[in-house]
Amino acid sequence: MQTSEQLLSLVENYLAQTNFPAEPERLYTPIGYSLAGGGKRLRPVLLLLSHAIFSDDAQRALPAAAAVEVFHNFTLLHDDIMDHALLRRGKPSVYAKWGENVAILSGDAMMIGAYMLLARLQTPLLPQVLTVFNRTALEVCEGQQYDMDFESRQKVSVVEYMHMIELKTSVLLAGAVVMGALLGGASEEDCRLLRRFAIELGLAFQLQDDLLDSYGDERLGKAIGGDILEGKKTYLMITAMSHAGEADREILRRTHLDPTLSDAEKIAAVKGVYDRLDVPRLTEQQIEIRFERALAQLDGLTADPARVQPLRAYAESLMGRKH
Amino acid sequence: MQTSEQLLSLVENYLAQTNFPAEPERLYTPIGYSLAGGGKRLRPVLLLLSHAIFSDDAQRALPAAAAVEVFHNFTLLHDDIMDHALLRRGKPSVYAKWGENVAILSGDAMMIGAYMLLARLQTPLLPQVLTVFNRTALEVCEGQQYDMDFESRQKVSVVEYMHMIELKTSVLLAGAVVMGALLGGASEEDCRLLRRFAIELGLAFQLQDDLLDSYGDERLGKAIGGDILEGKKTYLMITAMSHAGEADREILRRTHLDPTLSDAEKIAAVKGVYDRLDVPRLTEQQIEIRFERALAQLDGLTADPARVQPLRAYAESLMGRKH
Repeated sequence: MQTSEQLLSLVENYLAQTNFPAEPERLYTPIGYSLAGGGKRLRPVLLLLSHAIFSDDAQRALPAAAAVEVFHNFTLLHDDIMDHALLRRGKPSVYAKWGENVAILSGDAMMIGAYMLLARLQTPLLPQVLTVFNRTALEVCEGQQYDMDFESRQKVSVVEYMHMIELKTSVLLAGAVVMGALLGGASEEDCRLLRRFAIELGLAFQLQDDLLDSYGDERLGKAIGGDILEGKKTYLMITAMSHAGEADREILRRTHLDPTLSDAEKIAAVKGVYDRLDVPRLTEQQIEIRFERALAQLDGLTADPARVQPLRAYAESLMGRKH
Repeated sequence: MQTSEQLLSLVENYLAQTNFPAEPERLYTPIGYSLAGGGKRLRPVLLLLSHAIFSDDAQRALPAAAAVEVFHNFTLLHDDIMDHALLRRGKPSVYAKWGENVAILSGDAMMIGAYMLLARLQTPLLPQVLTVFNRTALEVCEGQQYDMDFESRQKVSVVEYMHMIELKTSVLLAGAVVMGALLGGASEEDCRLLRRFAIELGLAFQLQDDLLDSYGDERLGKAIGGDILEGKKTYLMITAMSHAGEADREILRRTHLDPTLSDAEKIAAVKGVYDRLDVPRLTEQQIEIRFERALAQLDGLTADPARVQPLRAYAESLMGRKH
């Protein structure tokens, strides 16, 4: 069996060899720029690790792995327009570098490119794979719409937030592992378990992302407190709002807008409320519950546990667990 | 065989029954709005007329017909953002009505919706159909990019312009008739002829559109001269530029920017140059050449001419020819 590092390098090579045309230059250059931008290649690696549980022929699943990565990068191009995000993985976003029209149209071309990669699959399972991909893609759009809707709403419940991040983050991980499993010849029940695994993993991953934004992790080199300064409705903020008294709610609602406070003071004020309400521990608990639930699905698979181990280990490393 | 009117009503019914989910409302409402906006349903009708040459079972091709229409409407949503177009078929564009972010994301969901319709096709030909659709979709994006590129360029040649409108307009008509033919069981050679037919028809259609914008057709109820007032590089403008002396070129280049002229004076000045240079007749000639070339392809088909007649008649009515 191949390690996740080996699978990652298969993905990188395959993507590097996937040539888009040269002309028109303003349509295709941003696509190459976006795909060369790195990232963990989380989704294609998950797809291949899931596939490897059932099949030794990673080559056959590579077009699907590349398709989910290209699709993911398409969503980033369009999300960055909608969020007016100037940076992506530490470099100027396509939106910032080429402008909005280019980001719209190159994004469209990337989505089509993802379907072109899918169409390369030499398998009678293409209709099933296409159906999984389509449903996944549409749900990702739904997640982005809910995310935007929530920005303009006063109150978002924890249940609504979890539903949104399930759509925005988890379903693409789930689509990836299900496509990998399908292409490997997995049973319907194994696909169902892997789907559940990825949904829960995605939730754990996103909540951890929320937690790290405020409580940090030097390894990521990420500025701490960005979400607080933007007044973003993260799991921490929503949980705090649901436990806070009126005075603390005012702090949570208004601090990021207060022009008399420095950034450091804003972050300290909001984290003061979080700490008082035990929000970091509540979040960690939720991460733990979700991650344990994810791993438990893997125990139910009919496959030899040794074949499942690389996927389990990858999930653990993703969550910063030793393995 | 079914008439084009009957096929149109099949398309309308099928589209009306294609339900998108209700939530999130801001994602899906604009899709219904866009698809209910009417239009000629040119592309799906062409697909079904092409299919009907080879098969009597229009039902089987309906998902593909709906897919090309949904894809076409997706392109309009995104084009209207890029062009800042406030009106579409006499109603506010999605961009104008809901704003840019909604138009981006609902457009994305429509493109995915087009692929969902394709995935409904119950046929071993799905990989071929998908491949045609993908290539077509990517070329439409290329056409839009060239169109935007040309806006900021001083000089565009007739050859470049024809290449752009082939990509932006013709290839989707060609994709439609090829998909219809494929699904009907047509041979490769018949597909090739139908593709050529639609490419030439699309060029004739687009040049006629350019001509009518300046020289009018009351039936369309379209304001005459819009292209001139925008200084658009149409076939007329590009042809005039390539024949004009320096004085006329100045008129062509600067008139639409001249603040001392009324709209009527601007239109009269530019049309004065067009008329002097015989541009309307040159354009009509080119339309005629393209349209004749389109119809000539149909003569080469192996099918019974009676089965081809409805497609021929539809093309003629599209070009305002008696039949």
